[in-house]
Amino acid sequence: MFITFEGPDGSGKTTQIARTTAALRERGHNVLLTREPGGTSIGDQVRHILHDMKNAGMHPRAELLLYSASRAQLVEEVIRPHLNQGGVVISDRFFDSTYAYQGYGHGLDLDALRQITRFATGGLRPDLTLYLDITPEDGLQRRLSALQQGGEWNRLDAMALAFHERVRDGYHRLMAEEPDRWVKIDAAQPVDAVQADILAALLPRLPS
Amino acid sequence: MFITFEGPDGSGKTTQIARTTAALRERGHNVLLTREPGGTSIGDQVRHILHDMKNAGMHPRAELLLYSASRAQLVEEVIRPHLNQGGVVISDRFFDSTYAYQGYGHGLDLDALRQITRFATGGLRPDLTLYLDITPEDGLQRRLSALQQGGEWNRLDAMALAFHERVRDGYHRLMAEEPDRWVKIDAAQPVDAVQADILAALLPRLPS
Repeated sequence: MFITFEGPDGSGKTTQIARTTAALRERGHNVLLTREPGGTSIGDQVRHILHDMKNAGMHPRAELLLYSASRAQLVEEVIRPHLNQGGVVISDRFFDSTYAYQGYGHGLDLDALRQITRFATGGLRPDLTLYLDITPEDGLQRRLSALQQGGEWNRLDAMALAFHERVRDGYHRLMAEEPDRWVKIDAAQPVDAVQADILAALLPRLPS
Repeated sequence: MFITFEGPDGSGKTTQIARTTAALRERGHNVLLTREPGGTSIGDQVRHILHDMKNAGMHPRAELLLYSASRAQLVEEVIRPHLNQGGVVISDRFFDSTYAYQGYGHGLDLDALRQITRFATGGLRPDLTLYLDITPEDGLQRRLSALQQGGEWNRLDAMALAFHERVRDGYHRLMAEEPDRWVKIDAAQPVDAVQADILAALLPRLPS
């Protein structure tokens, strides 16, 4: 089973994924945790280029292709082998981030994005996608708090609020297209309540 | 006018491009010289990933997407602005390398490559492509000699001879598809003869 988490930075995604992974492992599942961009040595090198503030002049088409390159390597080197062995894979972001950020956010052509994504993934799709929903204002506020505690501020954080509004609207459209694949979680709740909602959505779908 | 050079490493491409650039500048043309992968700061970072021997486990689809990312950045940041000012752009490799190496060499689907390439370039195509033709045996021999003199050996050099045969066959097919765009140069000749053939093909096509 292939599970992806989506949602803006600042939605508490990292914390929730760590707890979800631990909860599934306690129940005996063989869980592999990975993230996009990155998740492989080559992908981490690409991630570094994507997040480096000195690359602010990156063209949106180049950005899309870098995310897709990292994804192609991750699918072949990590995700497919683990799924083929019957394991559970949890990925922090997958192709829906491409559609939300590069498509709805930057205005790149969605048909072209879907073609390139099909090439990058070799057709692999998540079985379940958990969307941690939070307003852009709240998400950026949380990122700022994290920064004051020594967190990492990246190139995407610095984009205008209007961009993050388009991204959120994009996620909502993607959910409407495939309601069976998506579960929306209210990420403005306290951490424990968010985790409870995630497990309530996830556990019934897993093989026991 | 947008001119590209193609051909295997070891065909003398670098030397010939430098001489061609100098010859056109002497004649008063405003020539911008660039190369793929690379040619921009972001592209150079991608080039480093592509050529690093420790990345030998790179999947062919990831490789294709990295080349395409470098190309997208190069087109928008460098090539289009110079062409729009009426200048001449010479590029050491462009999308034909993708079709020859990743398509014919690695066996990736050519239709997918063309779609991704159209996305990366925004539809930009070379006006003239000079192909420096040399057998894979001669090309690798020259690369070995360069290495003994302190040259750089990269991940692509290390691939089997059969791969380089498929690449050469691919270039010949690409030339057959668009004979008006391509000029084939016999790169096994002495350096001065190769340069004379290049200028004989190129000068009549340039605005005087």
